[in-house]
Amino acid sequence: MPKGKNLPVAVVGAGMIRFGELFDKGYEDMVVEAYKNCLKSVDKGIDERNIEAAWLGIAGPGFTMRREVLGSSGLTEPLRFFPRPVTRVENACCSGSDAVRNAAFAVAAGIYDVVLVVGVEKQRNIPSRDSLIAQAAETFHAWWHPRGTTMPQRYAAFATAHMHQFGTTREQMATVAVKNHHNGALNPHAYFRNEITKEQVLNAPTVCWPLGLYDCCPTTDGAAAVILTGNARAKEYTDKPLYFWGTGLATGPFYLPWTSSFLGFPATEAAAKEASAMAGIGPKDIDVAELHDCFTIAELLAYEDLGFCTRGQSGHWLEEGHSFLEGDKPCNTSGGLKAKGHPTGATGVAQVCELWSQLRGEAGKRQVKNASVGLTHNVGGVGTQVMVNIFANELR
Amino acid sequence: MPKGKNLPVAVVGAGMIRFGELFDKGYEDMVVEAYKNCLKSVDKGIDERNIEAAWLGIAGPGFTMRREVLGSSGLTEPLRFFPRPVTRVENACCSGSDAVRNAAFAVAAGIYDVVLVVGVEKQRNIPSRDSLIAQAAETFHAWWHPRGTTMPQRYAAFATAHMHQFGTTREQMATVAVKNHHNGALNPHAYFRNEITKEQVLNAPTVCWPLGLYDCCPTTDGAAAVILTGNARAKEYTDKPLYFWGTGLATGPFYLPWTSSFLGFPATEAAAKEASAMAGIGPKDIDVAELHDCFTIAELLAYEDLGFCTRGQSGHWLEEGHSFLEGDKPCNTSGGLKAKGHPTGATGVAQVCELWSQLRGEAGKRQVKNASVGLTHNVGGVGTQVMVNIFANELR
Repeated sequence: MPKGKNLPVAVVGAGMIRFGELFDKGYEDMVVEAYKNCLKSVDKGIDERNIEAAWLGIAGPGFTMRREVLGSSGLTEPLRFFPRPVTRVENACCSGSDAVRNAAFAVAAGIYDVVLVVGVEKQRNIPSRDSLIAQAAETFHAWWHPRGTTMPQRYAAFATAHMHQFGTTREQMATVAVKNHHNGALNPHAYFRNEITKEQVLNAPTVCWPLGLYDCCPTTDGAAAVILTGNARAKEYTDKPLYFWGTGLATGPFYLPWTSSFLGFPATEAAAKEASAMAGIGPKDIDVAELHDCFTIAELLAYEDLGFCTRGQSGHWLEEGHSFLEGDKPCNTSGGLKAKGHPTGATGVAQVCELWSQLRGEAGKRQVKNASVGLTHNVGGVGTQVMVNIFANELR
Repeated sequence: MPKGKNLPVAVVGAGMIRFGELFDKGYEDMVVEAYKNCLKSVDKGIDERNIEAAWLGIAGPGFTMRREVLGSSGLTEPLRFFPRPVTRVENACCSGSDAVRNAAFAVAAGIYDVVLVVGVEKQRNIPSRDSLIAQAAETFHAWWHPRGTTMPQRYAAFATAHMHQFGTTREQMATVAVKNHHNGALNPHAYFRNEITKEQVLNAPTVCWPLGLYDCCPTTDGAAAVILTGNARAKEYTDKPLYFWGTGLATGPFYLPWTSSFLGFPATEAAAKEASAMAGIGPKDIDVAELHDCFTIAELLAYEDLGFCTRGQSGHWLEEGHSFLEGDKPCNTSGGLKAKGHPTGATGVAQVCELWSQLRGEAGKRQVKNASVGLTHNVGGVGTQVMVNIFANELR
C-alpha cells in the first residue's frame, strides 16, 4: 500500500447498545438492537436493502452459545439478511476491529458500495471459570499454561516489569481506572456509569498482584454496528461521514518469554506503523483515541507503544493530564473497556461508535473540543494480535 | 461491482497435504506441511518474507482442539508469521473459500501485493457424536433440532424430495460416488484412493435413507494453502498463474421449511450469479468444476443450481457422462469431498489446488483436456452459505 494513500472508505452510520450484564437480552436481541440503532444513526436515512454485504466480528460463540460454527448465520438469521453475503471474522479480542478492516478492503476493492459490520459477544451467561477469557488463555500451548494462568496473571507480569523498570506505581494504574470510570459515567452506553476513587481501586480485592478488581475490565454482553460506504457514496447518507484514513493489523507470539520485554507490545507498534503510514500521519496528529484498557496497565503500555509518550513515561504522562477528557489527547472518552465494558467481538466496533460521536461533535458531556482525527486500538490475547484503525472527519 | 470486471488477483502457488485420518499429524504439522507444499509449487520460487499478510479458514477449532479463540495464532504460531497480519475467517464449511475471497479483496484493494491463504481442519481426533458436523446441526435454532437431526438427515430430505419430484434414483446418486471414487483413486492427495462399484454403494449400510454410507463424505483431517498476488506481480512468481475472474458468496435461511423447495439451494444460484457476473461468463464457459458433494445428492443439486443442466435433469445429465473425467464438463476431478475428503476449513482452498493442477495441465492421470476456466463450489450448512469462485489460466 502506498504511504499516505487513505482507504477510499467512509463510515456513514454507527450504533450500539448499552453494554452490561444483559440477562434479559439474547444474542439475537443484541444484534438486532445494535443494527437498528446503527440504521437510525444514518443522517439521511438508509434503505436496508442497499446494504450489499456484511461482516460479523465475534470471538467465542462456541463457549457462550454452544455455537462453535456460527458463520454467516450469526447475522443472516437475526437480521433476515439472506441471500446477501456475510463473513464471520474471528481474531480473538480484535474480532470486531478486524471485521471492520476486512469489510473496508471489500469496499476499497470496489466490490460493494455499502456494507455492514456488526460486532457482538454474549459473555455473562456462563460462569467465569468456563468463560471465554479463561479458555482463551488455555490454548493449544497448554504446556505453558498450567491451571491458574489467567489473563490477569499475564498482564500482571507486564505491570510488575513496568513498575520494576520505570518506577510505575499502583497509583498511576489506579488513575487509569478512575479516569475511565469518570468518562463512563458520562456515556449512556457504558456498563459502569459510576465514578470511583483512587482509594477504592487501591483497596479493592487483589485479582493478581498488582492488579486489583478495579484494574480489570468486566466480562460483558454487548453489540455494536457500523455501516461503511465508498467515499463517493458517503454523502448520499450523511453530510458528516467519518473517513477511514488507515488500518493496521499486526501479530506477536503467544509464548511471551521467547521475545517479550514485558514492557510493551511490538504488535501495537507495528499495527500503528501500518495504519499511520496509510493515513500519512503520526501520533501527534491524533486528537482522540479509544484504547484497549483490558487492564489498567494495558492503557499505560498503549500510550507508549502508540508513541503518545516516550517509553517508560506513561505513568507521568497520565498524571500530567494529557489523556483526560480535558487534556490534549483524551483517551477512552467512552469509558474504555474498563467502564464501558468489553464484549470481545463488539469492542472494536464500539470503539468506532465512540469516534463517530466524538468526531461529529455529538458526544454530549464527554465531547472533546475540535477533535478531527481519531484512533482505535484493539488488542487480542496479550499482544498476540493488535489492530489500529484511524478515522477523520475530513477527506484528504 | 461492474459486470465483467474481473478481480485483479492471481494465484501463483497452491499446495496441500494428502487428506485422511491423520492421527500422526497435529494441527501445526498439517499447516506447516501444506504451507511448504504451497511454497514449493511456486515455479520461480518465492522468498517467504515477501508474503505480507495471511488469511486462515477454519470452521471449528473449539470442538477439535479446545481452541475456541484461535484467531491469528492459528497461523502465526506454526509458521512463525508474526508480526504480519493474519485474519481467521469462519463461515462453516465455506470457511476456506471465504478466506480466499477476503484475501483477494485485500489484494484487489491494493493493500497487499502477496498474501497467503491456509485452510485447515482437524476432525478425526474426537468421536463423531461430539464432532463438528454433529454440533453444527445443533445450533441456537435448537428448537428445530431435536437430538438426531444430523447433517445426513437434512440432506436426505433433499434426496427424497428430488426422487419424488423428478424421479431421481438411488442408482443415480450412487453413480456420483462411483465417479468420485474413480477420480480420487487417481489423486495422490485423496483420502480414499479406491474404486467402488454401484452395488457397493447401494448395499452399504443406510445412514439416513436414501443416503447410505457411500453417499456421505468422510469427516477428515487436512490442510491446503494458496498464494495470491496482484495480477501485475504474478509473472514474478510463475509464467502460468491462475487468474481470479470472479467470486460470489450468498446465504440462505437455516430453518429450511420457511422457504426451501428441498429441490436445490437458492444460495448456490445467487453465489454463482455474483461470481459469473464478475467473471463475465456463464455456466457453459466452465471447463472443469470442483463441487461440494458432501452427500451424493448435493452434487446432483449443484449441477442444477449452477446451471450445468436444467432443473430436475441432473440424474440423467450425470448418466449421460457430462461430468465424468472424459465428459465435456468434468466435475470433482479431485475425487471431491466424497473421495478426497472434507476437512471443512481446508475444503474450499483444496478446491483451488485442484484447479491449479487442472488449469496448468499438471493433473496427471486425471488431467482434463484443454481446461481453461474452472469453478469451485463450496456449501456451508444446508445451503446456509455458498461460495463460488471462478479461475482461468488466461488474463482477460
